[in-house]
Amino acid sequence: MPMNALSTDLYQLTMMAGYFHRQALDVRATFELSVRRLPPHRSFLVAAGLEQALSYLEQLHFSADEIAWLQDLPAFAHVPPPFFDYLRSFRFSGDVWGMPEGTPLFPMEPMLRVSAPLAEAQLVETALLAIINFQTTVASKAVRIVRAAAGRSVMEFGARRAHGLDAALLAARASYLAGCDATSFVEAGREFGIPLIGTMGHSWILAAPTELDGFTSYARLFGDRTVLLLDTFDVDAATQTIVDSQLRPQGVRIDSGEDLAASARAVRDRLDRAGLTSTRIIVSGDLDERKIADLVAARAPIDTFAVGTALVTSEDAPALGGIYKLVEMEDEGVIRRVMKRSKGKNTWPGRKQVWRVSIGGRAARDVIAFDDEPAPAEASPLLQPVMHHGARTTAAPSLENSKRYCRRMTDALPHALLTLERSADYPVQPSEALEATIR
Amino acid sequence: MPMNALSTDLYQLTMMAGYFHRQALDVRATFELSVRRLPPHRSFLVAAGLEQALSYLEQLHFSADEIAWLQDLPAFAHVPPPFFDYLRSFRFSGDVWGMPEGTPLFPMEPMLRVSAPLAEAQLVETALLAIINFQTTVASKAVRIVRAAAGRSVMEFGARRAHGLDAALLAARASYLAGCDATSFVEAGREFGIPLIGTMGHSWILAAPTELDGFTSYARLFGDRTVLLLDTFDVDAATQTIVDSQLRPQGVRIDSGEDLAASARAVRDRLDRAGLTSTRIIVSGDLDERKIADLVAARAPIDTFAVGTALVTSEDAPALGGIYKLVEMEDEGVIRRVMKRSKGKNTWPGRKQVWRVSIGGRAARDVIAFDDEPAPAEASPLLQPVMHHGARTTAAPSLENSKRYCRRMTDALPHALLTLERSADYPVQPSEALEATIR
Repeated sequence: MPMNALSTDLYQLTMMAGYFHRQALDVRATFELSVRRLPPHRSFLVAAGLEQALSYLEQLHFSADEIAWLQDLPAFAHVPPPFFDYLRSFRFSGDVWGMPEGTPLFPMEPMLRVSAPLAEAQLVETALLAIINFQTTVASKAVRIVRAAAGRSVMEFGARRAHGLDAALLAARASYLAGCDATSFVEAGREFGIPLIGTMGHSWILAAPTELDGFTSYARLFGDRTVLLLDTFDVDAATQTIVDSQLRPQGVRIDSGEDLAASARAVRDRLDRAGLTSTRIIVSGDLDERKIADLVAARAPIDTFAVGTALVTSEDAPALGGIYKLVEMEDEGVIRRVMKRSKGKNTWPGRKQVWRVSIGGRAARDVIAFDDEPAPAEASPLLQPVMHHGARTTAAPSLENSKRYCRRMTDALPHALLTLERSADYPVQPSEALEATIR
Repeated sequence: MPMNALSTDLYQLTMMAGYFHRQALDVRATFELSVRRLPPHRSFLVAAGLEQALSYLEQLHFSADEIAWLQDLPAFAHVPPPFFDYLRSFRFSGDVWGMPEGTPLFPMEPMLRVSAPLAEAQLVETALLAIINFQTTVASKAVRIVRAAAGRSVMEFGARRAHGLDAALLAARASYLAGCDATSFVEAGREFGIPLIGTMGHSWILAAPTELDGFTSYARLFGDRTVLLLDTFDVDAATQTIVDSQLRPQGVRIDSGEDLAASARAVRDRLDRAGLTSTRIIVSGDLDERKIADLVAARAPIDTFAVGTALVTSEDAPALGGIYKLVEMEDEGVIRRVMKRSKGKNTWPGRKQVWRVSIGGRAARDVIAFDDEPAPAEASPLLQPVMHHGARTTAAPSLENSKRYCRRMTDALPHALLTLERSADYPVQPSEALEATIR
């Protein structure tokens, strides 16, 4: 991931220069990252990207080259040299609270809270939003797809349709976090320890003298991990070729066809009659949560869904609209809560905590309160301290632990939130003190 | 951009092992990258990403760490050691033809053609698709937005909503290539020389003692490059504050409001009456080509549109569905053209060229022909040789030149293709020889 200090919007740097010039470097600010509205169809979001956000903050600095380049920009023509000296020693020194990755969350809830000298907190806005918006978008899509699969296995196969290779890597991570079982993207296996899965491409079959030869030579090399592709020419004929050949592949994949349920049934039947009852059927090809739900409802004998485009681009809602807003300032010990009052774009003031109130082990409502208010009854705080004075306060949880946490927290949501169409709004309330301040 | 050799799908590596094992390393293959269908509303696409694709191919290699890690993967448990020795000396040695960046193109037309030893051509599929799919998606969206603006300036402001920071960088590049005038993303200025633009954030105003103080202190530092943000509290009041303050900002920005046209008119009127006739009005806030077309049709006095989410995620069509398919094999001097015949997913065989036939300086139709066929009359070839034996054959064109080329080639399309709704299909025909082979 390109994580240099220039991966930001120009106005963050000009505002920094402004704060420096205004001698406002000692002013501390708190910004909160949240989402104003749920994307279409979704009833909740799944927080993701905190780990990469913290890595970005930890290593943030300006290189000598970057500073020299900035100094030559026309925009900085009138900015006096001391500002660039300040950049030379710049490090992020703030405190950060965040929702653990995998937390289901709702509009208006801060999922990240940054308290730092104003210029530092400002600079990091663009990168924090880009990092967290994207992974949260994909995790929130993945959880829908995994739920639709109703216990069948889901694999992420989307690298080629992701928004570049870096997006492919992070999409694989967010998908796994939110419940997928594996990825096809090798770098995600190496970087994050995500289980890898692979089959074969149509080109393998096309490049072989015959389809049978393509199947047998692959099986010789990959043994009991072999997954054979059925639809290069004709699915039924390819299945019969496998049966006749005495191969016993771990799986077969169907990547096209107008009626995948019927196709899977015909393949299952042919395999079963030949005694290949443990050969799994993998289906791929422009799948999404709705097509998967239909295949599950039709009781199609599919063991694994491999999902690409719809998952890694969150195709029906590819952007989240997360925002990062100033909510509090502290200058010479005086704390001032601030809010933006534009119509339809208002924010809630003050440094806040989100409480999830549970009844009988199930989430009942969330309360957004000032961070110094006492805990509501039966409530757990969702924001946790993760960085103090620019250093992490705890080791990052393993991706496996985050995945389990996501599953547990999602399972604890009201059932009405777990449908593919939004059928209920989860109650999120400001505390009485927050509500009084907003008014 | 993470461009290591493991940025690929697992099956590319298992197929490589298969080709090695099958002693098929001397078999040369040609793959072509194309798109089967236009995304909704679009009448054409704009090729982009070739430059990053070639950089990827040039530097592609396996590090010792990567090879050791691969060798330990369960998938490779039965693959004999010589394959890993082969990876140690692996470099991409193929020939590549590509459409220059900025070329308008259509379904079924190869925009990239890779001829290389089978295992090499196979490995690079995932990365080439991820790189080219994404930038082509954004360029194809950007050209719509720029056309809708009808000569008014368009700025790319979307980094925070891009699919990560790497996507932000490449989206800025593709947007500029396809006609945007500048970006807010600083790294894109440094990496690609794209003009930068910045304004101020709402936080700057919220952090100031008063809105007036926020305006004046910024103007003192940034002089005639100052752009002031009007909608932190109330647009009209902020405009009056500027007028009363005797500031003469280069521009003002309106970032929210239910009726941007009315808002811009009121601001323009107030500025003009105070003699601020050269202060430009910039509008931002969830704009897309349709909203821009409406504002232009309403003759709203807007000088510059700043576009974010819709542009960098290509929100209404965030994935392209590009494919990379084997079309030809050459083994011991024997050439074999191949095609996949799956229903709805067929490909056209053989190594091909795309010819654009022009009549009176305007594109009339494209012809897809085998690469050894003679040129049709009045036709120019769209695929150019860009890499030979793994090395670039020409210096990359400057981004400025690609931008001008894009403009010229787009201007030469039939007018009916330049509308926001698809109203006409551009004729793309296979040559007689190609058609005969397909049959």
